[in-house]
Amino acid sequence: MNMIDVISKKKQRQDLSEQEITYVINEFVKDKVPDYQMAALLMAIYFNGMSAAETAMLTMAMAHSGKVVDLSPLAGIKVDKHSTGGVADTTTLILAPLVAAAGVPVAKMSGRGLGFTGGTIDKLESIPGFRVNLSEQEFIDNLKRLNIALTGQTPSIAPADGKLYTLRDVTATVDSIPLIASSIMSKKIASGADKILLDVKTGQGAFMKDITQAIELATLMVDIGHKVGRETLAVITNMDQPLGMAIGNSLEVAEAIEVLRGNGPQNLREICLQLGSHMLVMGQVAPDFQTGYKILEHILDSGKALAKFQNFITAQGGADIINNQGVLPQASILCDIYCQQEGYIQHIDPAGLGLAAMKLGAGREFKGQAIDLSAGIVIYHKVGDQVFKGQKLLTMFSNDESKINNVKENIVLNFSIVSNISQVVKPQLIMGIVDQTGFKPFS
Amino acid sequence: MNMIDVISKKKQRQDLSEQEITYVINEFVKDKVPDYQMAALLMAIYFNGMSAAETAMLTMAMAHSGKVVDLSPLAGIKVDKHSTGGVADTTTLILAPLVAAAGVPVAKMSGRGLGFTGGTIDKLESIPGFRVNLSEQEFIDNLKRLNIALTGQTPSIAPADGKLYTLRDVTATVDSIPLIASSIMSKKIASGADKILLDVKTGQGAFMKDITQAIELATLMVDIGHKVGRETLAVITNMDQPLGMAIGNSLEVAEAIEVLRGNGPQNLREICLQLGSHMLVMGQVAPDFQTGYKILEHILDSGKALAKFQNFITAQGGADIINNQGVLPQASILCDIYCQQEGYIQHIDPAGLGLAAMKLGAGREFKGQAIDLSAGIVIYHKVGDQVFKGQKLLTMFSNDESKINNVKENIVLNFSIVSNISQVVKPQLIMGIVDQTGFKPFS
Repeated sequence: MNMIDVISKKKQRQDLSEQEITYVINEFVKDKVPDYQMAALLMAIYFNGMSAAETAMLTMAMAHSGKVVDLSPLAGIKVDKHSTGGVADTTTLILAPLVAAAGVPVAKMSGRGLGFTGGTIDKLESIPGFRVNLSEQEFIDNLKRLNIALTGQTPSIAPADGKLYTLRDVTATVDSIPLIASSIMSKKIASGADKILLDVKTGQGAFMKDITQAIELATLMVDIGHKVGRETLAVITNMDQPLGMAIGNSLEVAEAIEVLRGNGPQNLREICLQLGSHMLVMGQVAPDFQTGYKILEHILDSGKALAKFQNFITAQGGADIINNQGVLPQASILCDIYCQQEGYIQHIDPAGLGLAAMKLGAGREFKGQAIDLSAGIVIYHKVGDQVFKGQKLLTMFSNDESKINNVKENIVLNFSIVSNISQVVKPQLIMGIVDQTGFKPFS
Repeated sequence: MNMIDVISKKKQRQDLSEQEITYVINEFVKDKVPDYQMAALLMAIYFNGMSAAETAMLTMAMAHSGKVVDLSPLAGIKVDKHSTGGVADTTTLILAPLVAAAGVPVAKMSGRGLGFTGGTIDKLESIPGFRVNLSEQEFIDNLKRLNIALTGQTPSIAPADGKLYTLRDVTATVDSIPLIASSIMSKKIASGADKILLDVKTGQGAFMKDITQAIELATLMVDIGHKVGRETLAVITNMDQPLGMAIGNSLEVAEAIEVLRGNGPQNLREICLQLGSHMLVMGQVAPDFQTGYKILEHILDSGKALAKFQNFITAQGGADIINNQGVLPQASILCDIYCQQEGYIQHIDPAGLGLAAMKLGAGREFKGQAIDLSAGIVIYHKVGDQVFKGQKLLTMFSNDESKINNVKENIVLNFSIVSNISQVVKPQLIMGIVDQTGFKPFS
């Protein structure tokens, strides 16, 4: 087989065979297909796409490019959850202990944040003592004992995806739906999930700006899941405003604790209950969505989810943050921003606030960059809220005054305030679900 | 400036600026833009194209990536000729001495053959003693004295093109019209031509299979030429059958001598007279095409072109091949192929014969491969000829019996013979010209 022929075939919009896809991925991982040929193929895929069958083959080739975790010795149906990335999206920190407490085993591998979106591993690292890298034995032991374990993605999981992503990042080939779908699904499959729940974000603060693209991506991933024998369901959720109120690592941990206490922002609570209910049904712990929802409401409000969270943190070496939240890193400089006019909040730009939090030190512009775990932003209002001149709009947290001064000037531009409530359309939180039969919008 | 932004822009079908194009080429030559980013950009250009203005900027950036030869101290208008590559296309060997004898200075840099097309440098190397690499001083001296000098492309001429071509070759991005156009034109401009005559081949044995593509390529190159102040004219010629009768290096030199003697295949003679007449007009040696044509017919038939050819060969160290053609390399094995049926030749596949000659040793599959200068094929008929069973169709020349045996089996499949002359359409030799005002078909 010859890489030039494979590139030519895709360039002419022909489907690649399983043999060709496997050849390309295997040789690429062994450094036998050079980056320049892979870059040409990636750009041809960007333009000519891949069929669902090709994408499934690519997914499996990448999943099998390294270690495939075998969780079958553990009892229960392991349901993994993946979000395509949002702003103020602390869902995993709440959802994982919530569904684990309900009896669904949560064996999760998570990543770090990049650009304006955060990463679960960074958030957990803000808890003093918490270890994000478990040995395989610790991971299995914790899972058996607590029904929950969370670890960083190891390089042995889908190494082809890691290598490919690095190349896509520098060749402007990130935004290809089959490449995104196979990247996500290959990691989930290699991590050992029996079933996969996807939170596909759409809107201004998401990678998929419009819902059509989000549905396309979700449909492709659901299709891949079923093609390779892993039941997959996608929930399309809105990212036209930040999901919670906190953006930044320790700030989001604090917010997650609030939700686990039965308080916290309504949107964040609701999305966790809904995603969790699907996971309970998929994990065969609840007979249907409504029952699952009731179970989870009870677990959340009874404090069982909070207790599971602390058990999980303790098991991975973390401090007691439930009784002593003060141990979380605190920024030395707080700066409040006030509302400059009276009216109603029409729009809050999530990507803009995500970038601002990154500039305050909460995120990284490039891989490997050091971050400030205490930095970030807390907002006090959501779209539709009435605000008054001089009222507090948000607080910035940082340890670097120059960063505060740099961000301060334009941060208010992320809020649109209008004088009449009739000009405001509140975004719908859950847009619908995509299962094997297609997209079902929520009314 | 950032390469990822440049790739993204082209991916979104936006025009690149002069600054961006110059940046990309300059950094690429300095190895500061990695091959994988350039490969991604090349594939984006393949899909989204380039405007005439962008292609002209790319051409000039490549032309200025190395040495730009200054021929202005030499008297006369230097008209360079370039063929997009054909089979049995010995035009340059005839045309160069022909127009030089008529008073147009011929300062030519030529290349080697690749795949099924031959290269002038290889053909000249079959002449014992001939030096294809002249020093700059020798080149200028010969030009002044004889009005003709020919040398191999040096790496200092348009190095960006050389580097880019190597990458295109392994990333399936050769067949992009703006990339082909800028590659050809950058070399012609860097070689110091005042005016450029292009022989754009179309048909089965050419890179541009159909005339629409050939006209598109020709129009783009003519447009680039005028945009950068080098008058350019393109002649669209047919490559649906081999141009001459000989394919292979020393065989083509012998055929060129025949044409220079006033004999040889009619098609080859005619194309040289027509291309030459345009060069005489462009070089302001003839007032119009018809006069130019008459001048060249006289020069050819009077033996002046042949004499100029031998002077040129002698000046570059070559043997006296006019009086002693036997010094040209001769193959040790000759193998005749006979006609298996009676009828009329409907079609002769030039690419098929070009590949067969390559397999006999006359050409190279990859750059740098050693070739057999005596190997090749001579055909005895053209499309429209009546043939009889048992009549000689062609002779194969090689020094390797296994190559002969390998090619022998299927070579006859390159000829289609039909029983009725009415089924034969003889291909038109010259399809038309493209000047600044567009395509003008020949009736």
